[in-house]
Amino acid sequence: MSITSSLTSATLCRSLVSPKALACSNAFPSNRLSNPFESSKLCLTANPKKSIALVQGIRCHAMQVETREAFTAGKKFQLSDVIEGQQFDREMLSAIFHVAREMEKIEKSSSQSEILKGYLMATLFYEPSTRTRLSFESAMKRLGGEVLTTENAREFSSAAKGETLEGIPSCQLNYCQYTCYSNIVVMRHFESGAARKAAATANIPVINAGDGPGEHPTQALLDVYTIQSEIGKLDDISVALVGDLANGRTVRSLAYLLAKFVSPEIVKMKDDIKDYLTSNGVEWEESLDLMEVASKCDVVYQTRIQRERFGDRLDLYEAACGKYIVDEALLGVMQKNAVIMHPLPRLNEITADVDADPRAAFFRQAKNGLFIRMALLKLLLVGCKVIDVNLRFRTTGSVIKLRAQLQLGEIANSTT
Amino acid sequence: MSITSSLTSATLCRSLVSPKALACSNAFPSNRLSNPFESSKLCLTANPKKSIALVQGIRCHAMQVETREAFTAGKKFQLSDVIEGQQFDREMLSAIFHVAREMEKIEKSSSQSEILKGYLMATLFYEPSTRTRLSFESAMKRLGGEVLTTENAREFSSAAKGETLEGIPSCQLNYCQYTCYSNIVVMRHFESGAARKAAATANIPVINAGDGPGEHPTQALLDVYTIQSEIGKLDDISVALVGDLANGRTVRSLAYLLAKFVSPEIVKMKDDIKDYLTSNGVEWEESLDLMEVASKCDVVYQTRIQRERFGDRLDLYEAACGKYIVDEALLGVMQKNAVIMHPLPRLNEITADVDADPRAAFFRQAKNGLFIRMALLKLLLVGCKVIDVNLRFRTTGSVIKLRAQLQLGEIANSTT
Amino acid sequence: MSITSSLTSATLCRSLVSPKALACSNAFPSNRLSNPFESSKLCLTANPKKSIALVQGIRCHAMQVETREAFTAGKKFQLSDVIEGQQFDREMLSAIFHVAREMEKIEKSSSQSEILKGYLMATLFYEPSTRTRLSFESAMKRLGGEVLTTENAREFSSAAKGETLEGIPSCQLNYCQYTCYSNIVVMRHFESGAARKAAATANIPVINAGDGPGEHPTQALLDVYTIQSEIGKLDDISVALVGDLANGRTVRSLAYLLAKFVSPEIVKMKDDIKDYLTSNGVEWEESLDLMEVASKCDVVYQTRIQRERFGDRLDLYEAACGKYIVDEALLGVMQKNAVIMHPLPRLNEITADVDADPRAAFFRQAKNGLFIRMALLKLLLVGCKVIDVNLRFRTTGSVIKLRAQLQLGEIANSTT
Repeated sequence: MSITSSLTSATLCRSLVSPKALACSNAFPSNRLSNPFESSKLCLTANPKKSIALVQGIRCHAMQVETREAFTAGKKFQLSDVIEGQQFDREMLSAIFHVAREMEKIEKSSSQSEILKGYLMATLFYEPSTRTRLSFESAMKRLGGEVLTTENAREFSSAAKGETLEGIPSCQLNYCQYTCYSNIVVMRHFESGAARKAAATANIPVINAGDGPGEHPTQALLDVYTIQSEIGKLDDISVALVGDLANGRTVRSLAYLLAKFVSPEIVKMKDDIKDYLTSNGVEWEESLDLMEVASKCDVVYQTRIQRERFGDRLDLYEAACGKYIVDEALLGVMQKNAVIMHPLPRLNEITADVDADPRAAFFRQAKNGLFIRMALLKLLLVGCKVIDVNLRFRTTGSVIKLRAQLQLGEIANSTT
Repeated sequence: MSITSSLTSATLCRSLVSPKALACSNAFPSNRLSNPFESSKLCLTANPKKSIALVQGIRCHAMQVETREAFTAGKKFQLSDVIEGQQFDREMLSAIFHVAREMEKIEKSSSQSEILKGYLMATLFYEPSTRTRLSFESAMKRLGGEVLTTENAREFSSAAKGETLEGIPSCQLNYCQYTCYSNIVVMRHFESGAARKAAATANIPVINAGDGPGEHPTQALLDVYTIQSEIGKLDDISVALVGDLANGRTVRSLAYLLAKFVSPEIVKMKDDIKDYLTSNGVEWEESLDLMEVASKCDVVYQTRIQRERFGDRLDLYEAACGKYIVDEALLGVMQKNAVIMHPLPRLNEITADVDADPRAAFFRQAKNGLFIRMALLKLLLVGCKVIDVNLRFRTTGSVIKLRAQLQLGEIANSTT
Repeated sequence: MSITSSLTSATLCRSLVSPKALACSNAFPSNRLSNPFESSKLCLTANPKKSIALVQGIRCHAMQVETREAFTAGKKFQLSDVIEGQQFDREMLSAIFHVAREMEKIEKSSSQSEILKGYLMATLFYEPSTRTRLSFESAMKRLGGEVLTTENAREFSSAAKGETLEGIPSCQLNYCQYTCYSNIVVMRHFESGAARKAAATANIPVINAGDGPGEHPTQALLDVYTIQSEIGKLDDISVALVGDLANGRTVRSLAYLLAKFVSPEIVKMKDDIKDYLTSNGVEWEESLDLMEVASKCDVVYQTRIQRERFGDRLDLYEAACGKYIVDEALLGVMQKNAVIMHPLPRLNEITADVDADPRAAFFRQAKNGLFIRMALLKLLLVGCKVIDVNLRFRTTGSVIKLRAQLQLGEIANSTT
């Protein structure tokens, strides 16, 4: 078992340039968190539920960022919030994936788990997403917890009454009121940064289930978990991203992990991601030839062209849509052990005849979302003893390599 | 107790012309299912929950249609899907009604049932229907199960993102993804045939809770169960259907059972149902005189004229609406043991003074929906031992008679 | 402990003029309820769940108003419905608040309560209100009960199919059908009086969670409970209502308790409330100077100007909005032990810097809503033994005083 089995691209990238992240694997367990991301709060509370009550006279506020002493045997490892993919270092990912594997066993056994009995999760969806919501709610219920649900808080609640994020200081948001009702909040919002603002004012854990064009960290986690499960490793692999790379939140989050890009010119990956990859030493390549790329990659990550992102520009939508299709012909050139992934829902960008191929991993990928979310809920609400994940953490010294091509493809003018 | 106490019209009609259905009651239990309906899958799995996990590399797929050996003492009787009324033969109905009566006892006792503890049901409603949804969810919770709910998946989820049924092969639908999250799916859809397609791709049970102008089998089951409970038999009875016979899904499903029609000319029963009844030897009659018909029938089944089915044609709606009202005058001519049924919600097609009459059966009918749905959930998720329903199945030799008038009424030109 | 710690304004006002209410505290426990409000039904049923089944042949109907023998030691105190603030006399409020304090302990303990295990609550929201709905659902789940939820029944259900309250006799409404599915209904409706009509036809308890411009009794209860908790008493206090006094349902309900009004002229308190207060001997004052009023009051109750109540008249909205802001300057003139309340959600009528002040009570107020709703659910579904609240009821003889200024301010022409 190698520690390299669990890392995000961001961590990965940074690990190539940052002494902190590299030191992390060498100097464990004396490592201290000096994470610059304000959302990467870790705490070692004995019982997080106890700390929910509003302090007399003090407005509800985020838990203080505590110095982490995690990963010392016998100590408890507990997440505070899940806001963005970048907050996770390799140790944390390793711990999360370890718990996710435990969750697979729980889900497969017929017995009802009561790990989260007595805990309430509120799903605050200001933008509808049935799949993501049901995945979280199923995860909570599989662990014996209860759920308060909103299917479309934007239309149905105070957002319709004039409550927006624009121009309002985060501390003035009313999200923290929901902390009265539940022990944890899963939040989907139409504005980038909403989850971070909510986490800053809430005194219970907040999970970002997607914030507009921003982040979707649980999707990124399940994608990485799936690659690890399917390919067996995360280093020395190449991934082809296909589809709407400019607008897709999912693929943007995962892009940190990528080496090869394939997308219609209309919806190319935006320059910020490219710059990020380049500046972090990740080799990447932009291509218009899906067949050629697919023949060389370990993972073909297909995505949907999202009609709703194009507004009235149906001409652009139709031009982009269906340009790159994963079908039996593509399967023919793919390597034997490569896999096809897709965040779902798909339309016709993957043809039906692909489904029966063992390399079609997208339904297994969806199921992995359940396990990752079960793991996160456990780690946010009750934590786990480090003893559980000790073995994984003790593996040190592995060399992280991402061999990616740094041949920059021609960059078409981005039309979006 | 007579086996004739449990049969749908479809079965009934067919039993008059088909040796199979008649043989069924004589040659039991050596009977083998040779059901032509692809949705009538029966299986004898030991634990259906165990089989939910996606097989490695194989897309999720429907369970194979197995040859049924049901109704052999000691064997388990378990439904696979509930897609359409026609899938049920008399034995299955008898078993379902037997379990429904058990459910009445469970619901009336204060003790919390744990029959379905640990099971998750997802209600996927692509078209809103609060009553039907709450009835299913109540049924699941009364049995100790848990629920994942969507109030309007069409507006809120991938349907809004372009996912439709048109032109997409059923195997390419993404319903099966939901099987990751739950152990059973209750589905309402705006397109006819949607539930059948979903069942074909899902590896967990699917219940059709109404698919557009198509079927609404659980409503048909509860209607028949109510007639059986109220009248005490299903043979030799006559039923008057009143209201929107052209557009009402409920009444179309039940029409297979009918003998007499009363409806405004604007919204007469469509020809396909009439032809079906005629070709199956069911006597039926179309009438414009509700009083005369009601005086002779065992059941007056009133329905709502659905405004939304008329679109802009408010003139037609208003002409049809309120033409036939069930009121105290009608009660005056009805037989002492006849009953008034209505699928609810009602507007003013039944006046308030009717409610207090013992013959007003519509609230009891609604409650029966709870029992039927509890029974179906039990039979789909855990099944029941045939020993339970053995006595009912042993009753054989009863003669099924449907004495209906074959005086064809004048058929007005259908305007819809 | 003083009995005056628990009374609504309505009761309070009436207690100044009505012998009944005053006698209530003196002549206890021989007091008999002779409540003129039809919704103030009290019953002493042994097990309310048992009485849910529809009586054969009789439409579902409201429980009979029984003569109350409550508050006799050893007897059970059980509410029947919660329809309007006026239904509660001081004893009932005292009992409710007593149970609410028990609920605080349950909520703070980690152990899962099973007080309402096996009970089902349906939230029928014909108008969306995420906060109120989640508060009720959280309350039910904290007590071990289960929830059936509708986020927007108006849009999604039969209301969209033509079912309205206009012109339909209450007995013809179909709410009682929902009694098939649950043990208690929490109802939010867009029409005033809807909850009362539903309660009249339902044979299970109904809680009014807001009915259009009508009542919102649980909000009024939690407001009074908060004032009691924060100020320590309810007599001899003065409350400043600020904001949209004409349109806000919350503040109208609470207005019965008020002494001082501050509101922009555009949205003054309507005359009916003023007349009510005057005719009941409550001194009140209308002012345009928030600073002056705030310096003298025990409670500053700020409310939101609701944009949606103004329709197209954005000019009026903008004129009214932001005219009176609670900020640090206001905190500077407020008394040391006074508190700021707000029903939430707030926009910018309370600035963010106020949140950290101990006098900012609005988040504690929201949490109190959870305790009040837990208490009501307990009292409606299983009741409590009077022995529990005996001590409070034995306190008699307290003198209720509401010293309020009777200097009528100038009344601007109401534009709404």
